[in-house]
Amino acid sequence: MTAVPALRLYWQQTGHPLEKMLFRQFLDPDSSTFTYLIAASPGRECLIVDPVRQQVGEYLRAVEELGLTLVAALDTHVHADHITALGALADATGCTPRLSAAAGVEGAVPFHDGEEVGLAGVSMRALATPGHTDDSFCFLMDDRVLTGDTLLIRGTGRTDFQNGDSFAAWESLQTLLALPDDTLVYPAHDYKGWTVSTIGEERRHNPRLQVSTAGAYADIMAGLDLPRPGRIDVALPANRKLGRD
Amino acid sequence: MTAVPALRLYWQQTGHPLEKMLFRQFLDPDSSTFTYLIAASPGRECLIVDPVRQQVGEYLRAVEELGLTLVAALDTHVHADHITALGALADATGCTPRLSAAAGVEGAVPFHDGEEVGLAGVSMRALATPGHTDDSFCFLMDDRVLTGDTLLIRGTGRTDFQNGDSFAAWESLQTLLALPDDTLVYPAHDYKGWTVSTIGEERRHNPRLQVSTAGAYADIMAGLDLPRPGRIDVALPANRKLGRD
Repeated sequence: MTAVPALRLYWQQTGHPLEKMLFRQFLDPDSSTFTYLIAASPGRECLIVDPVRQQVGEYLRAVEELGLTLVAALDTHVHADHITALGALADATGCTPRLSAAAGVEGAVPFHDGEEVGLAGVSMRALATPGHTDDSFCFLMDDRVLTGDTLLIRGTGRTDFQNGDSFAAWESLQTLLALPDDTLVYPAHDYKGWTVSTIGEERRHNPRLQVSTAGAYADIMAGLDLPRPGRIDVALPANRKLGRD
Repeated sequence: MTAVPALRLYWQQTGHPLEKMLFRQFLDPDSSTFTYLIAASPGRECLIVDPVRQQVGEYLRAVEELGLTLVAALDTHVHADHITALGALADATGCTPRLSAAAGVEGAVPFHDGEEVGLAGVSMRALATPGHTDDSFCFLMDDRVLTGDTLLIRGTGRTDFQNGDSFAAWESLQTLLALPDDTLVYPAHDYKGWTVSTIGEERRHNPRLQVSTAGAYADIMAGLDLPRPGRIDVALPANRKLGRD
């Protein structure tokens, strides 16, 4: 048996660092949350985005087995549907918990619009995208964007709690949709079994993005008539303490 | 706001086709099954591996919205835990349902050990890996391998039904473990929320692969004392009809 290691040879010949980036998507099935573990390569510093408290054991196992050092844990926003692992990971590893300055959560090192929040060898820029909540951020990397609840695959985050604002969301979505078509979209959730999309796909096929004005988008969002999130009364107070008991 | 499209520029400069490969992982939450939709790029022919019948609508939506033409639907083996979408996809699109010759399923075009089963621009080689079942195959691509139930992330497929054989499984696993360390491992299932691994990681950290003989591996597998799969009596007869009613 002979493997056909074309891509691997390519890496070896070019040494292009992005090709070797370690990018791991984890799923919390209870809340359909995606969590991202990111490093330049195995053996290096890593960061984690949107970790879920009940999955901490899996993240720590991955960090250890990949020889990584966890330096930061970031949430795209204060979540209402699951309890964050920011506090648990900080307690277990000494990593820095980070949330947007707009979240105003004590104990988290705030990040600001435009700030580089990545690692050596991994560029990641915090991008303020208010609308789903007033503290929502996306994280823009070289070829992909972590979109939190701002842009979902063929959907968008609701705007009816936590100072959500459909008009602000519309503006934030326009910023994302201005990215190149082949930018990979990695959201914080999917409820249909999808794991990734692209900006081009969402511009063309996201049913909520086929309108041309903020007002029309706000009308769509106002008509959703969604139930109150089942876990919000537990998750929000917990997450304002970084998920610590 | 300016994106930093280093990888994209790289693609444009080199035109290396693998960099643009469309590779989509889908999840069926009921059975924790991963399904893979693969094409050289949007707008081209595609194939799908291990599709689940109840998710057919999602696959067809993706195929349509990405401008793809589905030409083949392959199962890594006759599954016992979910009903395949091979028949439903063939009926909906005219694609060719494919299973290993060892499965002996009427209506499927058989593939054989070593056969190239990919697409123009996407190399994929069928690799016989009996052990979990006697009809189990993996699909080897340039930089990754779809491992079905043969090799799971930090686990392996059980060997106690469908002519499973722990000694054969051990030999098949040795074949996979001989692949280069950075080969990506995409299994048919994960039950812990992980989505991908590598051969190097599994060689070092898969708890069932820390033994050095087939006999020791067979002892591990014999000691698992697993319950009979809950859906096997429905799934196996259905899947021998390609999941058609």
